[in-house]
Amino acid sequence: MGHDSRNILDYDTVNLNKNNNSLEIIDQTKLPGNIEIINLTKAEEMWDAIYLLKVRGAPAIGVAAAIGIYVLASKFEYRDKEDFFDQFEKSKNYLNSSRPTAVNLSWALNRMDKLCRDNSVKNVPEIIQLLKEEALKIRQEDIDVCRSIGEYGLTLVHKNDGLLTHCNAGQLATVKYGTATAPMYLGFERGYSFRIYCDETRPLLQGARLTSFELSSAGMDVTLLCDNMSASLMKKGLVDAVFVGCDRVAANGDAANKIGTLGVSIIANHFNVPVYICAPTSTIDMNTHTGDDIVIEQRKPEEVTKMWYKEKMAPENINVYNPAFDVTDHELITAIVTEHGIIYPPFEENFKKILLCKQQGPGK
Amino acid sequence: MGHDSRNILDYDTVNLNKNNNSLEIIDQTKLPGNIEIINLTKAEEMWDAIYLLKVRGAPAIGVAAAIGIYVLASKFEYRDKEDFFDQFEKSKNYLNSSRPTAVNLSWALNRMDKLCRDNSVKNVPEIIQLLKEEALKIRQEDIDVCRSIGEYGLTLVHKNDGLLTHCNAGQLATVKYGTATAPMYLGFERGYSFRIYCDETRPLLQGARLTSFELSSAGMDVTLLCDNMSASLMKKGLVDAVFVGCDRVAANGDAANKIGTLGVSIIANHFNVPVYICAPTSTIDMNTHTGDDIVIEQRKPEEVTKMWYKEKMAPENINVYNPAFDVTDHELITAIVTEHGIIYPPFEENFKKILLCKQQGPGK
Repeated sequence: MGHDSRNILDYDTVNLNKNNNSLEIIDQTKLPGNIEIINLTKAEEMWDAIYLLKVRGAPAIGVAAAIGIYVLASKFEYRDKEDFFDQFEKSKNYLNSSRPTAVNLSWALNRMDKLCRDNSVKNVPEIIQLLKEEALKIRQEDIDVCRSIGEYGLTLVHKNDGLLTHCNAGQLATVKYGTATAPMYLGFERGYSFRIYCDETRPLLQGARLTSFELSSAGMDVTLLCDNMSASLMKKGLVDAVFVGCDRVAANGDAANKIGTLGVSIIANHFNVPVYICAPTSTIDMNTHTGDDIVIEQRKPEEVTKMWYKEKMAPENINVYNPAFDVTDHELITAIVTEHGIIYPPFEENFKKILLCKQQGPGK
Repeated sequence: MGHDSRNILDYDTVNLNKNNNSLEIIDQTKLPGNIEIINLTKAEEMWDAIYLLKVRGAPAIGVAAAIGIYVLASKFEYRDKEDFFDQFEKSKNYLNSSRPTAVNLSWALNRMDKLCRDNSVKNVPEIIQLLKEEALKIRQEDIDVCRSIGEYGLTLVHKNDGLLTHCNAGQLATVKYGTATAPMYLGFERGYSFRIYCDETRPLLQGARLTSFELSSAGMDVTLLCDNMSASLMKKGLVDAVFVGCDRVAANGDAANKIGTLGVSIIANHFNVPVYICAPTSTIDMNTHTGDDIVIEQRKPEEVTKMWYKEKMAPENINVYNPAFDVTDHELITAIVTEHGIIYPPFEENFKKILLCKQQGPGK
C-alpha cells in the first residue's frame, strides 16, 4: 500500500485481514523508509516472512503463526477430515521450521494444533471457525499481556530515568505496546520524561530501524547509539535500567534474546545498572533446563558483510560469526517482568509458583 | 591511482613521496573496495585527511603529521626566518586541531617544533632539511617500535590461540606491523596458527573494512563479527586474549581507545580473558593524570544513521550518541605492551620506571 501520512503506531503489526482472509503484516524489512502492508495467504510466503524478518519479535511471530495457520487451514482443499488434519500437521511443521529459537512460534502452533485435536469430533468448517476464534484470541491476549507487563515494569522505574533497550521488543515485535517498551509507552502516556537509549543492534539494525523509529514516532526523547557505545553511556551514569525482550527463558532463568543482550547485561552488571527481561509467561520454557539447551540460530554472513551497504564493507569470502541470539545467564538478570508479576531470583522456584497460580487462575 | 593487483600490505600506509615532495597515504575511506593512493601538499588537504579518517590510527596520524608539516614547511613562501617560524606555528596548530584524542598527533608535531627551536640559529633551508630527516626518522622509529611491541606481545600468546581485536590497530594504523596486530603478523611469519576475531567496529567499520582486510590479505584465519557478538564468542571459550591499540594512556593506566574498547574489556574481564593494550611509549601521557582528563571527540550523527547505507536506516532527526573513543579503566587492563617491554599494574609506578630507562637509554 506504500507511503501515507499516518504514524507507524496507527498500523497493526500483525492482524487477520477479514476482507480477504489473509495474514496482514507490516513488512518490517522496509522500515523506516517505507510503511508497506502485505497480505499473505500461502505457506511459503508466511515462512519467508518469518525467516526474512518481515514479521519479527517472538510475540508477533507467535500471533502471525496462529493467524497464518488459520488462514492456510481455511483454504485447504481436503478430501476428508483425515486429509485436513494431515495438511494441518504438515503446515504446522513447515511454519515451525522458519525460526528455531523463539518459543512463541511453536507455542502458538501447538495451541492451534491442540484446539484441532480437542475438537476432532466436530466437522471441518466448525474446526476452521474455532481456529479463527483461537487465533484472534491469541492476538488479543498478546495485547493484554503486553499491557500488564508494562504496568509491572513501570513500578521499577522513576519519572526521569534513562532506559536502555536493545533490538526491538517494541510494538513492532508484538501486537501493541511491546514487551520491553511497554513500561515506556505506559509511562509516556502518564507524563513520565524518560530518556530512551536504543542500541542500533547489528547486523539487522532493529534498534535503529524499528525501536528508535516507533518510540520517536510516539513522541519520546530517544537517542540512538551503536551497540559498542552502551558501556560509555553507562559509565557516564546516564542509564538507570536496561529493559529487553526475550525469545525463550529456560527453567533456571537463563534468557535467550537478540545477539548482544549478553554483552549489554554484563556491562550493566559492571556498572550496577539493573537488567530487566520483559517476557510473557508463554516465553518461559520449563522443558528447557538451562540456556545451554537453547538452539541458537546461525544466520548468513551477508547480513554482516553486504546487506544495507552501498559499497563493499568487508573483504570477499571472509569468515563471519553471525549468531542471531545469545543467552544471558540468570546471574546477570535482576528480574523477569511477566504479565503475572515481577519474578526475582531464585527463578526456577519462583517460575513454578507463578505458573501454578496461572494454571489455577485468579482467586484460587 | 585506482585498482591494481598488488596486496594491500605491499603499499605504504603513510610515506613521504620524494618525487613530488608530498605526504602520500592510502585513502582508507575507500577500503576495502578500492586501493587509492593520494598525495597531499596543502594544509587543508592534510587536515581533512586526518579528520575524515583517510589516514587514521594514532601512530599513523603522528607520522602523517610529521611528514605533513615538513612538506608544508618546505613550500612556505617566507619573508624571513621569523615569518617562517610564524607560518610553522600556525600550520602546527592547525594540523593539531584535526583530532583531539590521539596524543601522537601533538607528540609528533611538538617534536618537529622542538627541532625547529633547537636549530633556530641555522638558516631556513638547513632547518627544512632537518625537518625532513626528523620526519623520516619518526617514520622509521614507528616501524621499529611496532616490531618490538610485536616481539613482546608474542610472548603472551600460544600458537593456536584465538585473539580478538577491536577497530584497526593494524599496519593500516601505523607504518608497518601495527600495534595490536604486530604479535599476529610476527606469529604468523613464524608458523603460528592463530584464529583472529575482528570486531567490525561501528560506526566506521574499521574492523570490517581494514583489520579483517589486511589480516586476511596476509593469509591469516580471520573471522569477522559484529561488536555485540564478542560476549557470545567469549562465552564459548573461543577467545584466549584481547589485543587492542590505544590513542592515549593516562598516568594511572586508564586507556582511551576506539569506542567499544571499554565494553569489550568489561566483557573479557567477566570471562577471565586477558586484555592487552598495545601502545608505543609515546602514547603514554604522564601529564594526563587519569582517563577523566582525556578529551573525547564527539562525531557527527550521520556516521551512525546514514553513512555507508543504501537506504534510510534510522528516523530523521533522531538524537545520536556518537563518541569516537571511550576510556578503559586501568583495573580492566591486564598489561600494556610497549616497545620497551610489557607493563603490568601498578601502572603509574611501572610507567615511571620504563620511561626513566628509556631516557637513560640502554645499558645505563
